[in-house]
Amino acid sequence: MRDFSGDHRWLSLNTATVRKQGDLLAIVDACARAKVRAISPWRDQVAAIGLARAVAAVKAAQLSLSGYCRGGMFPADPARLEETHDDNRRAVDEAAALGAPCLVLVVGGLPQFSRPGSAPSKDLAGARALVEDGIGRLLEHARAARMPLAIEPLHPMYAADRACVNTLAHALDLCDRLDPQTTGALGVAADVYHVWWDPDLMAQLARAGARRLLAYHVCDWLVPTRDLLTDRGMMGDGVIDLPRIRAAVEAAGFARFAEVEIFSDHWWSRPMDEVIATCIARHCTAV
Amino acid sequence: MRDFSGDHRWLSLNTATVRKQGDLLAIVDACARAKVRAISPWRDQVAAIGLARAVAAVKAAQLSLSGYCRGGMFPADPARLEETHDDNRRAVDEAAALGAPCLVLVVGGLPQFSRPGSAPSKDLAGARALVEDGIGRLLEHARAARMPLAIEPLHPMYAADRACVNTLAHALDLCDRLDPQTTGALGVAADVYHVWWDPDLMAQLARAGARRLLAYHVCDWLVPTRDLLTDRGMMGDGVIDLPRIRAAVEAAGFARFAEVEIFSDHWWSRPMDEVIATCIARHCTAV
Repeated sequence: MRDFSGDHRWLSLNTATVRKQGDLLAIVDACARAKVRAISPWRDQVAAIGLARAVAAVKAAQLSLSGYCRGGMFPADPARLEETHDDNRRAVDEAAALGAPCLVLVVGGLPQFSRPGSAPSKDLAGARALVEDGIGRLLEHARAARMPLAIEPLHPMYAADRACVNTLAHALDLCDRLDPQTTGALGVAADVYHVWWDPDLMAQLARAGARRLLAYHVCDWLVPTRDLLTDRGMMGDGVIDLPRIRAAVEAAGFARFAEVEIFSDHWWSRPMDEVIATCIARHCTAV
Repeated sequence: MRDFSGDHRWLSLNTATVRKQGDLLAIVDACARAKVRAISPWRDQVAAIGLARAVAAVKAAQLSLSGYCRGGMFPADPARLEETHDDNRRAVDEAAALGAPCLVLVVGGLPQFSRPGSAPSKDLAGARALVEDGIGRLLEHARAARMPLAIEPLHPMYAADRACVNTLAHALDLCDRLDPQTTGALGVAADVYHVWWDPDLMAQLARAGARRLLAYHVCDWLVPTRDLLTDRGMMGDGVIDLPRIRAAVEAAGFARFAEVEIFSDHWWSRPMDEVIATCIARHCTAV
């Protein structure tokens, strides 16, 4: 396992972590000040400043990307599947323009939440089928653009409204069916917040291996958790055995960035430089 | 699948559903008024009025039980395992005195949350081992008392603080290891709130079969869910495909009560008789 204690060369900042404190240009500047080498930006943050400016800012700051957030939200009414596909094609193209190593896919839940306005449904199995169809179709465009797709299983508490792929096993099953040759075009993003509880976690990380493990996200699980969405913890403040999970991730062959992604009303209320400094400190001591 | 549309003979009320509105005696009276045939009471509610009075009230009202809540919370400091075991033995004995068909086990999470005061730990695998040891030991007493134990997997969002058994597959693996002869002494409680998201749900219900399926709990999953603990929905108000799940439960051989268990600040704020009437109406139309 890599030694993170001496520096933060393997830290990447998911820019949602400080999304309330400033725009993407401000975040890029703060990363440069803190010598953070990589980020993973969100589509809305890129759109807010314009893709060309985002590309230029990342290049000027000599930042790497650890991913681009996000494509997905596949379940939709039949009449809206084309619009959904086009949206995801654009996400692939943006990721390519930014030089991201992968486009993270949050696959969506039931159609009425995935693409609001779609007819209400309780058919979770049907939503899962739409997800598989959607990834399969997007994969053609992604292969042509040489942009790997990383399916991110979300915690089961988001099954209805955000992602109906909730375990690494499910995500890897999709990979095996849609990319049986393990070409590198399709893999997974493993975020500790979503998968830490899974008794099958270690086995599935080993199954994934370096070819499927395209991104690794860290934060922590707080007890109590006061909000389903915006109460993630800073690494070290919760109950997740982060070094044990990273050991398994790296034993599987992963050697990329540990991306900090924290959605937290608390950390959104702190100055950007303080949050980034804390991320760096915890990267060295708790990840 | 049984037809629930005409009456509520197969409804049981988990008494936590109206715990804020009155004590167990008041709940028993309200069930008698509403012709609810069965309840599943909680230990603290029984303790509040005394076991003998609880037994007498249940008998006088000719109520059946669909379960008794709850034993478990096995992970603890080594020095406290004996106290934990004694506590669970008493739960078995109370369940027997009340004539419950099973004692529901909420197995506990990390020791510091399962038995407060225990040393903080992030060792989830270790907690799971303590759970297996604890159930194995309790099973001896439960067999002697002829009280089946029903392991209730809880939603993964409770893995740290309430139960580190989070899937039916895990619960059934424990059953298979601890009761390989499927004697009826050990099984599972399937609560839709905890398992509805699981892509393996239907297969695991079939695997469980009538010998392992000791209890079936219903409520609904609301979107958004505003609190991890106290925002469960009334059946029909959320996104769970309840008839589809009950069809699988009954296809597996289950023919007992559908137990309504709703922890909800909203429903706790309504009059007891109104809540029970709503449970009955939804039992007939949405379960």
